[in-house]
Amino acid sequence: MLAVTAHFVSLLTDFGLADPSVAACKGVILGIDPDACLIDVSHGIARHSVAQGAAILWAALPYLPVGVHLAVVDPGVGTERRPIGLQTGRGDHLVGPDNGLLLPAAERLGGIVAAHLLEADAYRLTPLSRTFHARDVFAPAAAHLARGVALGAFGPPLEPSTLAQLEMPAPIASGGRLEASAVFVDTWGNVQLLAELSDLETALGRVVPGDELAVEATDGSSPNGPTAIELRWRLTYGQAEPGEPLLCLDSYGRLALAVNLQSAAEKFGLGPGRRLRIGRR
Amino acid sequence: MLAVTAHFVSLLTDFGLADPSVAACKGVILGIDPDACLIDVSHGIARHSVAQGAAILWAALPYLPVGVHLAVVDPGVGTERRPIGLQTGRGDHLVGPDNGLLLPAAERLGGIVAAHLLEADAYRLTPLSRTFHARDVFAPAAAHLARGVALGAFGPPLEPSTLAQLEMPAPIASGGRLEASAVFVDTWGNVQLLAELSDLETALGRVVPGDELAVEATDGSSPNGPTAIELRWRLTYGQAEPGEPLLCLDSYGRLALAVNLQSAAEKFGLGPGRRLRIGRR
Amino acid sequence: MLAVTAHFVSLLTDFGLADPSVAACKGVILGIDPDACLIDVSHGIARHSVAQGAAILWAALPYLPVGVHLAVVDPGVGTERRPIGLQTGRGDHLVGPDNGLLLPAAERLGGIVAAHLLEADAYRLTPLSRTFHARDVFAPAAAHLARGVALGAFGPPLEPSTLAQLEMPAPIASGGRLEASAVFVDTWGNVQLLAELSDLETALGRVVPGDELAVEATDGSSPNGPTAIELRWRLTYGQAEPGEPLLCLDSYGRLALAVNLQSAAEKFGLGPGRRLRIGRR
Repeated sequence: MLAVTAHFVSLLTDFGLADPSVAACKGVILGIDPDACLIDVSHGIARHSVAQGAAILWAALPYLPVGVHLAVVDPGVGTERRPIGLQTGRGDHLVGPDNGLLLPAAERLGGIVAAHLLEADAYRLTPLSRTFHARDVFAPAAAHLARGVALGAFGPPLEPSTLAQLEMPAPIASGGRLEASAVFVDTWGNVQLLAELSDLETALGRVVPGDELAVEATDGSSPNGPTAIELRWRLTYGQAEPGEPLLCLDSYGRLALAVNLQSAAEKFGLGPGRRLRIGRR
Repeated sequence: MLAVTAHFVSLLTDFGLADPSVAACKGVILGIDPDACLIDVSHGIARHSVAQGAAILWAALPYLPVGVHLAVVDPGVGTERRPIGLQTGRGDHLVGPDNGLLLPAAERLGGIVAAHLLEADAYRLTPLSRTFHARDVFAPAAAHLARGVALGAFGPPLEPSTLAQLEMPAPIASGGRLEASAVFVDTWGNVQLLAELSDLETALGRVVPGDELAVEATDGSSPNGPTAIELRWRLTYGQAEPGEPLLCLDSYGRLALAVNLQSAAEKFGLGPGRRLRIGRR
Repeated sequence: MLAVTAHFVSLLTDFGLADPSVAACKGVILGIDPDACLIDVSHGIARHSVAQGAAILWAALPYLPVGVHLAVVDPGVGTERRPIGLQTGRGDHLVGPDNGLLLPAAERLGGIVAAHLLEADAYRLTPLSRTFHARDVFAPAAAHLARGVALGAFGPPLEPSTLAQLEMPAPIASGGRLEASAVFVDTWGNVQLLAELSDLETALGRVVPGDELAVEATDGSSPNGPTAIELRWRLTYGQAEPGEPLLCLDSYGRLALAVNLQSAAEKFGLGPGRRLRIGRR
């Protein structure tokens, strides 16, 4: 049973699906481990957006089987940034660049129980290109991990505290209001905030469906104009009228600003990084 | 042999491929049934377009092996709409929301031989989110069906006549002309009509390659201007000159309005829902 | 071992992923060979762009396991163009239309050791559509090859010299400068040229990182204005400053014009087919 689950290999990149990059990585993996079962997490991460990649890994990996997870959003390819492999408390392996991409997901999968540099030539393609480590370093590492090579065989251990961290803006409860940052817009235009229900209730007290709330940007304006967005706390999109804005828990456990049957991101001009303040009306 | 084919699981959604939704569903399926063989039908259905999803399922599923087919275009998620599982005459299982999405495909796969509500907690994720039943209800159901759980174990039987129906506009032969609705635009811009060759020949008599036809919108205008589109009946795109419009049978057995080596949808401003009238010149 | 690798089936098309075309092909393959392991090379080839498809196949296939490779960019579907299957020196089978699409990749996989017409009715779907040979001819052929049917069973042998050739513009070294054509823009906007390092060094002598170069279009203008693009030879993108243009070897062994952390294609208005002249400053 462990032998089976060890062969799941997921992939997340900012490569898109039109050029040969993803296929080359998959081919390398299957050439090394023909029993690998590949799962695409996403190849539509915005180019070089490590934070977006980290947020999507964080959301998706808890729902994937224990396995090897390759993630490459790597603006520093070919420079000094280190290629790393992590082992999680749940038993997964994560491989990718040491730029913070892997850390939120690793934390959610039980934390980092081991970290190693990926430097052994035996587990890299030869010749090694300078521009495509996903194919030449990370894909071979993922495949060898999937077929059972121990993480320690890839290179020396790394102290987890030395790994590069991502700056992720924390939620702040203050003066009866919650400040939180938009981290991600999903396919339907729902705006995910980097905050959980407990953060909201710390600031506002217990919320129940129908509670009247207001959302404005931290510069005091509404995201799409001079006044705040008026909305209600809901349990699901369909509790609001079509076109009505709402705040709810998204399906991954974070707060989301949505509009029933419409795109909140378009309607209010919101995107990743926008800082919002939520209070009662 | 049955054991093998029972493990095919296809997926159709309007989730797109950039966010973690599809990956989460696949992870849930593979976590429950590690032997599932996943096939993406499409994740590019226009948001909340149940009719487009139904048309693409109808086209694709007859070419897929007998298996489990998960389809989620679900504007009513979190409301009273029922989660359902269907068994077809061919031996497939279809799972998705009770909003008409599954019915045209089920009809084409031998009709519905059993329908059940999907309500057993044992075959759902816990906790159940209110906004993502694809992951929490439909994906687990698909995986349990794939590994052999009987449809009857998921909940009480439903009378097929009580399932929600989609309004699909029927073709009408009248006065030597055929009225039919555009249902779908394919990758090349060919406009698929909700009508078959027999409908056309009922209206116009037998057609042979080269027959001169004219197409106008049912309001009397051409789709792209005041006069009708003049074209010929063809067996294939390449029988027309580059840039020449044609009417033919598409590869799924429906009528299609096309332009050789160009996009008919762009050239004539056509899209799903447009009602057209076809006659001889 | 051969039995395993023979079941890898890769797919490259210009079908996109929104409509049912790719799923229908995959379904046909898995219906014939339930043990096929499918790998998507790309379905994002520009519509009818045989040259782009050929370039991406050439780049990707060397990294894929030995197997069957289905490639369909087929503006001549339904006309006289022949459906062909090729066997390569490496042991792969390539199936697709006889329009040049398969030849650069076949050459790179050890050359063509056998070529056959795909005409046996036993290995086609019935009825055969006139507009979708990917599903009805090429997918069944790929699946039967994957499960071990000999290429000779599909139809008579073809003389490789009679296969349709693609015009691919060759690099020219002359007067201390190299002329080469842009063949492909990757996901990050890097512009791949149809030339290798040896071509550049034939024209300019040995290049080392930091060498100052200039690029202009062969009509004497810069791709984006009246003067040449000034850049340096680099080993990797990150050796240039953010926003600085560079010339380097891409990860498939061809020259690439890039801009560190930006899109060279957008910045300089470059796309496939543009002819560039590279010299020293």
